[in-house]
Amino acid sequence: MSDIRWLNDHEQEVWRTFMAAVLGLTDQLSRQLQRDSGMPHTYYEILVSLSEAPDRTLRMSELAGLRGSSRSRLSHAVARLEGAGLVRRRECPTDKRGSFAELTDAGYATLAAAAPGHVTEVREKLFDRLTPEQIEQLGEISKAILEGVDASALPPCSNLVVER
Amino acid sequence: MSDIRWLNDHEQEVWRTFMAAVLGLTDQLSRQLQRDSGMPHTYYEILVSLSEAPDRTLRMSELAGLRGSSRSRLSHAVARLEGAGLVRRRECPTDKRGSFAELTDAGYATLAAAAPGHVTEVREKLFDRLTPEQIEQLGEISKAILEGVDASALPPCSNLVVER
Repeated sequence: MSDIRWLNDHEQEVWRTFMAAVLGLTDQLSRQLQRDSGMPHTYYEILVSLSEAPDRTLRMSELAGLRGSSRSRLSHAVARLEGAGLVRRRECPTDKRGSFAELTDAGYATLAAAAPGHVTEVREKLFDRLTPEQIEQLGEISKAILEGVDASALPPCSNLVVER
Repeated sequence: MSDIRWLNDHEQEVWRTFMAAVLGLTDQLSRQLQRDSGMPHTYYEILVSLSEAPDRTLRMSELAGLRGSSRSRLSHAVARLEGAGLVRRRECPTDKRGSFAELTDAGYATLAAAAPGHVTEVREKLFDRLTPEQIEQLGEISKAILEGVDASALPPCSNLVVER
């Protein structure tokens, strides 16, 4: 196995710190949303995706692709959101490619109410902790990583803001 | 809502790129492990945690804490790993604080077999794509983020290497 390029100690330290930072950050964002808006991060992201789509509507299949999540998990989440009145599902009679999910006005209002707390958390836990140079660096590093990721495997961007 | 510090366009671009990079990267690592080693990333991480513990053994409660996962989800995963012969569970008769999970020799061998592919993926998808300066920067940025994360909410580091 001598041709395996193991990480050296320093690289391993960077890798562990990076993973811990990412997991810690995403965990905190999820907790804030759950605590203050009563929804898990995945639900928030579904609402964001719908809010940015034309007519605030997406095919379930598009939504699954955007969210990088399985159809069954997505169906469960959308059913819960529908039960809460935040999303409406409907079939398209002329299109057999499946049903659509639409953000309701109540869903939009819920998202708009959740966004300030979420963006505040993102600012406090990420942007406020970095220098302007580090924010630039993080953008460049992220771009470089993203270019190496198989596009077909690419999950969605996470969005923050409904409207300013 | 004028006191909400919304992200400006550039910050939002950095945030979206960062989240997409992180999600894309972790998704690729999971796919590689599933494809080449037949296990999801979460299972791999359980094996890594056990491999680094004294006697390759941890309380289930410790393991849950390390993994930042719920007890029920962990129990399910460990039951699957036990079924595959990679982990052994046992009760401690003098300690009521629950059962232990121990990495078996087969589990260690499985982890050792999976590690080269995993580290190669981490190198190709992350380290090979960054300059030495960017690797330094990523380490510093990650440290800064980590310092702002509530320690009690902190999920585990993800480890790579069983043994050199």
